[in-house]
This record gives sequence, C-alpha cells and structure tokens, in this order.
Amino acid sequence: MNYNQLSKKQLDQALSAARKKYNALLKEKLNLDLSRGKPTSEMLDLSMPMLDILTGDFTSPKGYDYRNYGIPDGIPELKEVIADVLDVEPDNVMVGGTSSLNLIYDVVTRAYCFGVCGATPWCKLPKVRFICPVPGYDRHFAILEQFGIEMIAVPMDDNGPDMDMVEDLVANDQSIKGMFCVPRFSNPSGIVYSDSVVDRLINMKTLATDFRIFWDNAYCVHSWYPDAPKLKNVFKQNVNLDRFYMFFSTSKITFCSGGISALIASDKNLQSQRKLLGIQTINYDKLSQYAHAMFLRNADNVKAHMAKHAEFMRPKFDLVLSTLKKRFEDNPDVKWTQPKGGYFFTVTTAPHCARRTIELCRKAGLKLTDAGCTHPLHQDDMDSSIRLAPSFASLEELEEGLEVLCCSLEIATLERRCSGEKNSNV
Amino acid sequence: MNYNQLSKKQLDQALSAARKKYNALLKEKLNLDLSRGKPTSEMLDLSMPMLDILTGDFTSPKGYDYRNYGIPDGIPELKEVIADVLDVEPDNVMVGGTSSLNLIYDVVTRAYCFGVCGATPWCKLPKVRFICPVPGYDRHFAILEQFGIEMIAVPMDDNGPDMDMVEDLVANDQSIKGMFCVPRFSNPSGIVYSDSVVDRLINMKTLATDFRIFWDNAYCVHSWYPDAPKLKNVFKQNVNLDRFYMFFSTSKITFCSGGISALIASDKNLQSQRKLLGIQTINYDKLSQYAHAMFLRNADNVKAHMAKHAEFMRPKFDLVLSTLKKRFEDNPDVKWTQPKGGYFFTVTTAPHCARRTIELCRKAGLKLTDAGCTHPLHQDDMDSSIRLAPSFASLEELEEGLEVLCCSLEIATLERRCSGEKNSNV
Repeated sequence: MNYNQLSKKQLDQALSAARKKYNALLKEKLNLDLSRGKPTSEMLDLSMPMLDILTGDFTSPKGYDYRNYGIPDGIPELKEVIADVLDVEPDNVMVGGTSSLNLIYDVVTRAYCFGVCGATPWCKLPKVRFICPVPGYDRHFAILEQFGIEMIAVPMDDNGPDMDMVEDLVANDQSIKGMFCVPRFSNPSGIVYSDSVVDRLINMKTLATDFRIFWDNAYCVHSWYPDAPKLKNVFKQNVNLDRFYMFFSTSKITFCSGGISALIASDKNLQSQRKLLGIQTINYDKLSQYAHAMFLRNADNVKAHMAKHAEFMRPKFDLVLSTLKKRFEDNPDVKWTQPKGGYFFTVTTAPHCARRTIELCRKAGLKLTDAGCTHPLHQDDMDSSIRLAPSFASLEELEEGLEVLCCSLEIATLERRCSGEKNSNV
Repeated sequence: MNYNQLSKKQLDQALSAARKKYNALLKEKLNLDLSRGKPTSEMLDLSMPMLDILTGDFTSPKGYDYRNYGIPDGIPELKEVIADVLDVEPDNVMVGGTSSLNLIYDVVTRAYCFGVCGATPWCKLPKVRFICPVPGYDRHFAILEQFGIEMIAVPMDDNGPDMDMVEDLVANDQSIKGMFCVPRFSNPSGIVYSDSVVDRLINMKTLATDFRIFWDNAYCVHSWYPDAPKLKNVFKQNVNLDRFYMFFSTSKITFCSGGISALIASDKNLQSQRKLLGIQTINYDKLSQYAHAMFLRNADNVKAHMAKHAEFMRPKFDLVLSTLKKRFEDNPDVKWTQPKGGYFFTVTTAPHCARRTIELCRKAGLKLTDAGCTHPLHQDDMDSSIRLAPSFASLEELEEGLEVLCCSLEIATLERRCSGEKNSNV
C-alpha cells in the first residue's frame, strides 16, 4: 500500500484497520524478544563436540603443557586456524579471551592510557574524536562514550559509510583518531562494505598519524546465502597496513560465553600490543584455545560448520524478508535492508516513526532494541532506525513478532500521515 | 659455619673449597629452573576431572543457557563457592576471566581512566603513588611502572610491612592512592600478615579518600602444613570496608591457564566496578565458571583438594628448609624465610651478594628470578634479596638446584668477606 496515493479518508480508514489488528494482538498477551543477536540453543548444540575434544594430553608439539602458565598472545595451533579463516599470516594474529568486545575495549584502553605506537596517550589530549558510521553497534558507541571520546555520525548506504564525508573528516581533523566499522554483515544494517569503500578506507589520507580503524569482523564467516558478498582483505593490499585493527570472534561460531576472540594487525601494531599485554596477563585460557584449534581445524571446516548455522538462520531471514515485502513492498514510508548474513536487519521508517513503533511493539509484548541505540549517544535525529534481531526467536515466535512489528509500523506511520507529518517533522 | 669467627686465612680456604665444589658443578652442565611459581603437571592432573564435569546441560536453575551471552559479573553458583572459601557474601564476589593479574590490571586501569568511585581519574592527577611492601611481586610492580605510578618501597618483616612507616605515609600524602599486598604466603617471602598488621591496615587514617589496598589473596588456601597461620578477614571487621579490593584465583587450585579469577569488594566498590565492566564485556567464560562451581563445590571440598596439592609441595618445602638449615644455620650472612604455604621463599644474603649469587647460579645452569625483581624498578639497594620458587622442579632437580644455590651463596658471600666487604658496601 502506497500511502502517497491514499486520500485523507483512506488514510484514516487504514489507521483504524491497523489499530483494530493491533488491539487483537494486545489480547494475545505476547512475550516476544527480537532485541539481541543471540544464537539459539540448537545452534550452540552444533559445537557441543568441542567440549569432549580435549583428550587429556595438553603437551604441545613444542613441549608446552597448555594447562600451565605462559604464551600470553595465544597458542600457535589456534593462530594458524584463525589465519587460515581470515587469509592472513599466523604471526599477525593475537588470541584473546572469550569476548572480542573486551579485546576491542582493551585496545581502546591501551590507546587511551599509553598512546598508539608511541603517540601521545589519548587521555593527555584535549579532545579525541571517532568516526561512527550509522546505524552502528550500540556497544561500540558505549565504549567511546565511557572514555569521553566524541563521536561523529556518518551515514551508511548499501555500500558502506559515506566515503566523501569520511575522507574529508580524516584529512582535516587531527583529533580524529579512529573509526568503528563492522564491515561484513554490518551490525545492524547487514550490509557488506563494497570493494570501492574498502579501497578508499585503505588509501585515504589522514591528518592524524595515529589514526586507526577498528575493523570488527565479527560476522566474517556468517553467510546464510550462497550469493553473499565477500569482503575485500585489508591486509592484502600492502598499503597502510598499520591502519587496521581487525577483530575476530567465535562467539557466534562456537559459544557466546566460552568462545575465543582475536586481534589481527600489522607487525608494528602487534608488537606494541604484545608489549602492553605482557604486563596485563600471563595468559588467556589455553585449554579453550586448544579445544577451539582442534574443533575448528581449518577454513574449510569452519565453512562447513557455518553452513549448519545457516540452516537455522536462513529460514528466519527468508521470513523477515518475505513478510516485510508482503506488507510494505509498495510503501515508500518503510524500507529495510536485505542482508545475506550476520544477525541483523535495519528497518528504516518514515522520519519520526521509529520510537513510536518500538513503543507500540513493547506494549504489545514484543521487545526490540531501544530506539536510537544504533546511533551515538542514542541520538537518531531522524528517529527512523529500527534494529531487528531475528536469530533467537523460533520461526513461530518470529512470525508473531513480525506481525506485531508490521502492525506497529503501520500505525506509527499512518498516525503521522493523518496528523500531517510534513509540518510536524521539524 | 659462622664466617664472623673465621680468620682471613680460613675465609680464603673456605672460598677455595667453595670454588672447587662450584667447578665440579659446572662440569655437570645442569639445566635447572627455580625462577617461577608454577605447579607441576602432576598437580595440574589433580583437576583433570573438572574437564569431564560438564554434562551437556547448561541451563541454570534460573533458566539461563550458560553457553549464551550475559551475566558479566559471573554465575551465582560459582560466586557461592568462592564466598564459602573466603567467608564473604556471594553478592560481594565478581567473577573474572582466567587471570587474576588481568583482573588486578583492569581495576588499576579503571582507577586510572575513570577514578575510584567518582574521584578524579588518576590519569588527570599530577602524581599518583603506591606503597609497595618489599620484597614483593614483580608483576604487581610492572603494572604500576607501566602506568607511571610512583612506587614507595616499604620493608617487610615476618609480620608484614613496617606499619609505622605505612601509617605515616598514608596519613600525610594525598597522592598515595594505593598499596599492593599479598597478605597470605606473600610473594616472595611466604610470610602471613599478622592480625595486628591487618588491624592497622584496616584502621589507619588515610589522607586520600580514594585510597585502596589491592589485597592479592592468591594463596589463600595454599597451606602446606597443618600449623600454617591464618589470615584475618578484612571484610568481617565492619570498618573501612571500601578500602580493600581482594583478589582470588584458581590458577594454582585448578589450572594456571584455564582457571578463573575473582574480585571481592564492598557493595559500593563492586557497584562501581560492575557499571564499568558492563561496557567492557558481555561476559567471561561461563562454561569454565560452571565447571569450576561443580568441581570445587564448597570450602571443605577445596580444602580437601588443596591437601592433595600439599602432598606435592610439602616435601619440596621441607627440602629447601633442611638444606638451608644444614648449610647456613650458624651463618649470620645468609637468612631465609620459613613459609608454611604458598610458592616462594626469600633468601636474604649479606649486602651486595644477591646479584653475584644469581649470576653464579646462572653460569652453573640454575635459573633464578632476576636480581632485584622483588623490588620496584628492580631497585634492591641492598642487593640482598633472592626469590626461590621450588614448586616446578622435581625433588631431584630441586636437590641439585639447592646445591648450586648454596655453593653460589657461599662463594658470593666469601668473596665479599675476603675482599673486605665492610668498606665496599657503600
């Protein structure tokens, strides 16, 4: 239904009809949650064999007892697996603890306290700014907010962030020290950065020499469709290799709590990180690392493992796409991304309709991520971005949830149409 | 042999005899290591059943799937076990990752970046100072050094740090923000803080309101003798409860890499830590936490488990003590501590003999912890402190190592005696 083609009376009728459907949904007293990107128990079950894989011999080929102290930056067996998955060198892999968010946090902390590779620590600078493509990941923004780092929102389209804007910013502002990216199956839009965008990120001139891109490759192997776009490898271009801190995680490959994380970076960057890490800890959990190395084995095996994840995820992605298409195909007021992998969709409403939609959903028993959370400091000025995380719900729950969402979207949009949104948008 | 009672000629003869023994040892081309406090593989084997304890059902009584995201400050089942072991409330326990050093580092980092409970962040202060009882733990000092925190060495005796000095310092210096303590079986002296010392630490007046004691209770259950002294519980006195961050670790209970750590602190302190932690990570490894909870069970069971560790450690401690007694009982130039638990001994040489002793050991194939490492910035001005870590060597290796140590101690001491140490000590 294209609301542009409806008369005032027809809009009123459509709103009444939507409200009637919504009131019926209210009576169902639903309790649904599409707010966080969590795998289901069935998906976690796929990695249960990992828990039985440790045979009792923990002596590595080099003679280390992996139960004992040492090797702070990770065991070589797992570095090799991760390097194979990401097509990088094992020497450029540093393995962390169970949370890549924690690893990202630690790298930000090191820059804040000690500076990037010898540059002035951020805590000693009057101002530090970061580029934050929006919509983006709320937990990235929360880290920057905690450190008092100023966030500059840069809009994204289906190819990635607006590179004209990014290039202009980094070329002229010494205080811009970093940028957060989820380059493949971005959280929350699900888009994959195009080769052209990646090339421009690699090659752009930055005024700050200690500028770093936090390349959170959390969904690198999380394709649910055979035609999912690939991501260009930033470490294969041999240009500005020090620019990227790439992060990897098995949270959504093996276990969310009990997986492992990794930092992939240039020799120079890793040398600096390792030096600081050596004071921070004696080691992460090498038993977990060893179990991961034996379970994941190599890139081909990880691909086969993720194909099993896809069996669970694809029907949910199909359902989201077909439902939104059915309900809003000809409606210019509601748009959505069409990700081929990852954990999220972004639904873009007409201006000033997202918060109202999320509130209507909440009242009808559907929990969505908070309004504005996809933007720094929760400031989604257009109030139009909704993050949808369909992974954890069952197909039945997802179907019910989408019904609530669509109905709430219709109401919120029609309310503004009926009250004359063109005037109230200011 | 009391060198004080020997003539110059007798000293020369003793030195020749020691050198002869040492030269014989050189020919054995030994390769021994008494440098780090590591358990043996046999001790780690005691915890192997933990790796088979996860039955496949990860749903907690409260309905959480522990393989999935959430519960950043640790699962309740493990908090209860740790609380039982330490005689504190479960609500005052926050469970961390595999390394308590990392947890300590994180707490220092939070104070540096964000301040202690609302006080000025240390990075914004012109100077931050810490009290460091010596001899102390090299890795604590390395953290402070990395953050540019000034360390004030305070000497220890068999009861703990010199409390007159500590009280005077904290009462008059606003920049003193903290103090590092290993209160039970201290690293490296092995002494246990007396009740009187603990009382004074609890009750002393500090000029800085954000002063904190980092109470690294890493060896809390690591008694090797039935008459090992107990440590007074700082959280039972109901005075200055916010003063202590207590740290706990299972690195030397279960696995060094694959254990878990915990922070125990007051409600106010933990509230502040949890708020910051919630941005840093979504969770630590709850599978490891769950396995630990099921394996360790309660305080009594931990005690029984550690009694098995004692079977391995006690013979080594006995051997160190009997050997040093045999060789140096009547010799005022060599002193040593007599710990009843933990992982370390401190051997105190005559002034200016420690570095030479350690060097002689190294040449004869015995690795000891670096000279000076027990002091901030490696500045052991008296050059008299040697850390001895007998845990990892076999009894046979330990016996050989002690022979090298004793022989090297004799040479270093006699060299100074023979060259007239009284004049060269300045």
